[in-house]
Amino acid sequence: MHDPSRRRFMQGATAAVIAAPFISTSTTRAKAAASRKKLGVALCGLGRLSTNQIAPALQKTERCRLAGIVTGTSGKTQAWRQKYDLPARSVYTYDTMQRMADNEDIDIVYVVTPNALHLEHTVAAAQAGKHVYCEKPLEISVERCQQMLDACKSAERLLGTAYRCQFEPHHRESIRLAREQELGPVRIIEAGFGIDVGPPDQWRLQHALSGGGALMDVGVYALQATRYLTGEEPVLVSATETKTDPVKFKEVDETVAWTATFPSGVLAYCTASFKAGGIKNFRATADRGWFELDPAYYYSGIKGSRSDGKPLSFPPIDMFAAQLDDFARCIEERQPTIVSGEEGMRDVRVMTAIYDSIRTGRAVKI
Amino acid sequence: MHDPSRRRFMQGATAAVIAAPFISTSTTRAKAAASRKKLGVALCGLGRLSTNQIAPALQKTERCRLAGIVTGTSGKTQAWRQKYDLPARSVYTYDTMQRMADNEDIDIVYVVTPNALHLEHTVAAAQAGKHVYCEKPLEISVERCQQMLDACKSAERLLGTAYRCQFEPHHRESIRLAREQELGPVRIIEAGFGIDVGPPDQWRLQHALSGGGALMDVGVYALQATRYLTGEEPVLVSATETKTDPVKFKEVDETVAWTATFPSGVLAYCTASFKAGGIKNFRATADRGWFELDPAYYYSGIKGSRSDGKPLSFPPIDMFAAQLDDFARCIEERQPTIVSGEEGMRDVRVMTAIYDSIRTGRAVKI
Repeated sequence: MHDPSRRRFMQGATAAVIAAPFISTSTTRAKAAASRKKLGVALCGLGRLSTNQIAPALQKTERCRLAGIVTGTSGKTQAWRQKYDLPARSVYTYDTMQRMADNEDIDIVYVVTPNALHLEHTVAAAQAGKHVYCEKPLEISVERCQQMLDACKSAERLLGTAYRCQFEPHHRESIRLAREQELGPVRIIEAGFGIDVGPPDQWRLQHALSGGGALMDVGVYALQATRYLTGEEPVLVSATETKTDPVKFKEVDETVAWTATFPSGVLAYCTASFKAGGIKNFRATADRGWFELDPAYYYSGIKGSRSDGKPLSFPPIDMFAAQLDDFARCIEERQPTIVSGEEGMRDVRVMTAIYDSIRTGRAVKI
Repeated sequence: MHDPSRRRFMQGATAAVIAAPFISTSTTRAKAAASRKKLGVALCGLGRLSTNQIAPALQKTERCRLAGIVTGTSGKTQAWRQKYDLPARSVYTYDTMQRMADNEDIDIVYVVTPNALHLEHTVAAAQAGKHVYCEKPLEISVERCQQMLDACKSAERLLGTAYRCQFEPHHRESIRLAREQELGPVRIIEAGFGIDVGPPDQWRLQHALSGGGALMDVGVYALQATRYLTGEEPVLVSATETKTDPVKFKEVDETVAWTATFPSGVLAYCTASFKAGGIKNFRATADRGWFELDPAYYYSGIKGSRSDGKPLSFPPIDMFAAQLDDFARCIEERQPTIVSGEEGMRDVRVMTAIYDSIRTGRAVKI
């Protein structure tokens, strides 16, 4: 906790839940950290995100460590075991996850599989007595999200949704600017995230595995931004879509745009695309100015700006490490997480309404 | 025509209509300009726009000049006559406009009155044998726009809509980038214009005079941008609105957001606000990058940027002078104008659909 930006972020994240009932100095915290047993994290799904982002981040975490893997691809296990010094007993397949119940090295399962497999893997992990951190979107329907919540509640385990941006200092400062109305009340939020999704054979383009295309995969970042900036749930959404490559995007949405109204009167206009890369921002316009992050959602290089020229700039952090350390802290301190399963389910509810609006041609009340 | 940016813009504007059937060099054009009689413009409505922008711009025009005024406020006439050396016979009220038929000094009437008076003043001007240039939005309904078109057609006079941005070099270059697909096909356009509309007693907040609020007054700029960048008409619009001050905005929209799909698959997401000033941009995202103007719609200070870092920058021009000079050129050369009455009517048609979408809660096909 020697990096001031990190300390600032952790304070912000903590403040957003419940003020911690104890005061600790850097020294006492350093002592506590030294004596603390790190929580073991098993990565469930060893795709690019796990390989390139999460596993390296786990080497930087203070409160947790990579302790196991779950994969359906046996060819991957040897390299992972060697690279991260994992014992054979901490390597699982999707079919042997229940055996984790006997493995005290593993406290948390981080589910990084395709969207529509999150329920199955979350239930397996919770039934094995593990806390579950799950990639976004939480699942492909509200009903399936609810089943995940129920499974973790029954097992008395914590469920978190991997909304890393909520732990990033530019985003936290943006939330503060919005909530404290430093530039006046926010009236309009523009938010969009578009990527060139890449090869046509990936699971993101298969509806059965993804539950949807651009909206589910990247639109959720823009939707999240409108929700955490306002601190409110949208009450009405209206959406349209276009498809310029009906072969590649036969099963899922290519480009979607939506508008959303919030109870306090904020109006959001947003987009998500698997075709037009380069949109990656939000801008909140208030009565006396605006603030913007662009890029807002990338793994690194987040940049902020304000209409009044004041800085909106913080040193970079590893967002994957930050979110996992906060999740471990919540487990240790028996605190709720700001990125709960409920929080993940709320976005799935809004995205379902956006798809309903596209399908029916009607504005949808939520 | 010695300013290279001006020449570039004029070429662009001309090319967008019909290639001129003659070739002129700077020298021959300078000679022609010297011998040419400037067309006389009467300003109909002497509010802030006429006072602060249009009358000063008419002092810089090459092909036209301020030749008369029409006002309902007799107290204004003396100051205007003195400042611009106008003869008594070229001063009219809204009730005496028909007498313009006898005034050869006046070739064009520039209608700068509240939206819902455009029809009446256009018909009066056309029946007096004058060409009509009219502020945006053209009128408050498609039917009333059509009556304006009909009146000018019957009188064999040209009708133009004061879309000054279409003559501004950053906008023309943006149109070129989109149409020539320099960064690949455009997929998504974000566009928004918001102002703090000011005092509550103005005609813009009275539905009978304005026909609508933020959308009609400033949203039309964002809508125009999506239309001239694509060169297409939207086929489906979906919109929502919010109102945080129902007293001030009792009669008209405060903040509106809409999405629009275009035949080629472009998706636009847009906003207009009378509350949240500071939004004033468009950004077009294509397959290989994006380009943006921000500010895009102000009277001056237009700034452009491209994702590839190449410049999107031109010397400033007086847009009011440029549009009037082009309208005069069209009259002299008997060419159509790129900002025709039809062009103005098309935007009114889309705005009507946006209001329909808000009222019915349905996406509206156009």
